[in-house]
Amino acid sequence: MVQRLSAEFLGTFWLVFGGCGSAIFAASVANVGIGWLGVSLAFGLTVLTMAYAVGHISGGHFNPAVSLGLMLAGKFEGKDLIPYWIAQVLGGIVAALVLYIMVSGGPEFEGVGGFASNGYGAASPGGYSMAAALVAEIVLTAFFIFIILGATSRGAPPGFAPIAIGLALTLIHLVSIPITNTSVNPARSTGMALFADAPALAQLWLFWVAPLIGGALGGLLWKAVADDD
Amino acid sequence: MVQRLSAEFLGTFWLVFGGCGSAIFAASVANVGIGWLGVSLAFGLTVLTMAYAVGHISGGHFNPAVSLGLMLAGKFEGKDLIPYWIAQVLGGIVAALVLYIMVSGGPEFEGVGGFASNGYGAASPGGYSMAAALVAEIVLTAFFIFIILGATSRGAPPGFAPIAIGLALTLIHLVSIPITNTSVNPARSTGMALFADAPALAQLWLFWVAPLIGGALGGLLWKAVADDD
Amino acid sequence: MVQRLSAEFLGTFWLVFGGCGSAIFAASVANVGIGWLGVSLAFGLTVLTMAYAVGHISGGHFNPAVSLGLMLAGKFEGKDLIPYWIAQVLGGIVAALVLYIMVSGGPEFEGVGGFASNGYGAASPGGYSMAAALVAEIVLTAFFIFIILGATSRGAPPGFAPIAIGLALTLIHLVSIPITNTSVNPARSTGMALFADAPALAQLWLFWVAPLIGGALGGLLWKAVADDD
Amino acid sequence: MVQRLSAEFLGTFWLVFGGCGSAIFAASVANVGIGWLGVSLAFGLTVLTMAYAVGHISGGHFNPAVSLGLMLAGKFEGKDLIPYWIAQVLGGIVAALVLYIMVSGGPEFEGVGGFASNGYGAASPGGYSMAAALVAEIVLTAFFIFIILGATSRGAPPGFAPIAIGLALTLIHLVSIPITNTSVNPARSTGMALFADAPALAQLWLFWVAPLIGGALGGLLWKAVADDD
Repeated sequence: MVQRLSAEFLGTFWLVFGGCGSAIFAASVANVGIGWLGVSLAFGLTVLTMAYAVGHISGGHFNPAVSLGLMLAGKFEGKDLIPYWIAQVLGGIVAALVLYIMVSGGPEFEGVGGFASNGYGAASPGGYSMAAALVAEIVLTAFFIFIILGATSRGAPPGFAPIAIGLALTLIHLVSIPITNTSVNPARSTGMALFADAPALAQLWLFWVAPLIGGALGGLLWKAVADDD
Repeated sequence: MVQRLSAEFLGTFWLVFGGCGSAIFAASVANVGIGWLGVSLAFGLTVLTMAYAVGHISGGHFNPAVSLGLMLAGKFEGKDLIPYWIAQVLGGIVAALVLYIMVSGGPEFEGVGGFASNGYGAASPGGYSMAAALVAEIVLTAFFIFIILGATSRGAPPGFAPIAIGLALTLIHLVSIPITNTSVNPARSTGMALFADAPALAQLWLFWVAPLIGGALGGLLWKAVADDD
Repeated sequence: MVQRLSAEFLGTFWLVFGGCGSAIFAASVANVGIGWLGVSLAFGLTVLTMAYAVGHISGGHFNPAVSLGLMLAGKFEGKDLIPYWIAQVLGGIVAALVLYIMVSGGPEFEGVGGFASNGYGAASPGGYSMAAALVAEIVLTAFFIFIILGATSRGAPPGFAPIAIGLALTLIHLVSIPITNTSVNPARSTGMALFADAPALAQLWLFWVAPLIGGALGGLLWKAVADDD
Repeated sequence: MVQRLSAEFLGTFWLVFGGCGSAIFAASVANVGIGWLGVSLAFGLTVLTMAYAVGHISGGHFNPAVSLGLMLAGKFEGKDLIPYWIAQVLGGIVAALVLYIMVSGGPEFEGVGGFASNGYGAASPGGYSMAAALVAEIVLTAFFIFIILGATSRGAPPGFAPIAIGLALTLIHLVSIPITNTSVNPARSTGMALFADAPALAQLWLFWVAPLIGGALGGLLWKAVADDD
């Protein structure tokens, strides 16, 4: 169990460090910046790479909504849920801390600002409403968990799941960075919100509620459509 | 059959929601927008991800032109064609509806405009003629179906087809977004046209006719060049 | 043999149609254009997709320099070289013709201009000299053929070669579009040069000589370093 | 052993030639330039392609920090460390030399300037401090080696490691080009520093010290978390 929780901690650290780090350091630089396309790719590659590295150890969730969805689909034991959530949230917080240290080493540092945190309304990158944010996060998390369950099911070709799952996260970011800066992952939202300027912490509830609802829906949808047990 | 039609419905929903959603929300944002490259990647990843998730259930068509081409190549039963088409078109319509709800939650919403619909002539992103649109949609759909048949044939390495097929759709968008906003898929065109401003509905015929001709040509071309049965 | 030559014809058509098509239609559009990154991806995906579709039929060369390099490495029979070259060049020419028809359907058409042809000196996108062009095309083609031989060798994991080879072509374009618009493939250069404005035809010799030298070097280098027979 | 060292030499040549070449020629061109996203992709694809081509010959390190980390994890024999390092550094130097020749064939050549070398402080692309550079290079190299060990371990699906490892390098660049221009590889830093303007050589020490510390940490971390022997 220590091995599995270490893997979840490191994987979630990598997800937040790589995904949010690319957003903070490289997204908006003039002319050569990587933009939201680069950030979307970075988030997806954190999961693709760590799922190949430690997926066989912990399952490679790196996300409380994923653990919940897999549990409801009968693929993950309920007694492990809270330990996984704790390891994931800790990974997200430590990643945010290391990013904070690095950002403070930048030129003319005056604070982290939004710090790649998630938000809606005035805190949405594109100014989208709370309702749009809820729809986006629920629908996208549901399909994310559905794809995870499908790509790891018995009928799917073995070995390819990390590609499908990682690139699903890339796709999700390509759609929803403008809406919420994309969470679908409460651990990622929590880590960054602890360091970001307001209103990140005040809006954090949505990025637990919506992904968890979405994760649950995705797990139950898979059971309904394609239970393979 | 309910499982298979559910898979086609969900897969086509995802294709339209993810592909057109990325175009609507993220393509044109100043500085950090994902551009047509990001949209091309998004469309491809919808198919790559869902083909891994449910390809083993329904075959993973998500596209009436694909179902037609596979039928003509002898890989899909004719009696299933119309049910598949209905599930695919419904998936496209529901995706467009959810996107409509989300867009209406954006700041200063005044209508969806083109809404990522397909078009030619004045409605072509680059102003290309109806003739250019026909050539593009027919040729690209034909090669799309040809690649699908080749990558899923007995001689091809097993398991990789969703990568080849998804990235083929990315490639197709890299070429033809400027010409027609890229259809090669009547379900995708129909869903968005129902909500988009004129002339999307009036031009919808081309995005049934050309992809279906292309799909048929691709299926027959594969049979001629490389029938593996 | 008809099947194999058809596969080479279609594969080279797809390479030129998809790669050069993306460059012509989508690369330079303001704000949302795909840029050289998108063009690089498009070229690579033409090979990735067609290698999965017909690689098991013809070997998936789509390039006279590849056929030469494989022959010198002992992986391709000398008697098939000229038929392959003819099929490849025809595929490139027909693709250029279809692109010409589509371009002429664009708004305010006044000629194709450079038409994604290859060039050096004043015809180099970045103004690089003939010497730089020779070095780039020879070195990059040599490594391209070396990677093809390595990724398809007995020791390499089976099934992944189209990914390695396609993405090698993407990488090659990421480096050398500024220098020569990237050939490494005489069939691609020939097809476009026949329709492009001067000096494409006058400079075409270099895009036969350098890729063929590079292909030969790559084949011999593989034999020297890692002959696996 | 000659085969293995040749493979390391060629692989590191390709890494530096492809990765730094894309940065030098294509990153900053107006409108169509590939930006840091394209450079990140290029670096990753050098490793992905060569790991498929010669990974079964030499292990596909192409990086002194990788060789050190694998040695400390018990996956690489200590007596081969110095020969590998020499082959890798030579590959990096020869690649830098060929790039130098090509750059000097560009229009109005007046010197190579930074020449894609690594740096911190005033030589950091984003002006980040030496402390931020140390943290970035150590953390990113440690996770790079951790992912390499995980993706090549017995529990991981066979054949996919080059994808995971190559795309991990892409991800690493997406995060850290703004900070240090991204090294995580002393051979890459050494080759370019020999030709670049000051202060590349004076700062080269950091790009040996930090990646080697990171590589060692990554190797030991893997042994602690998930030793599979």
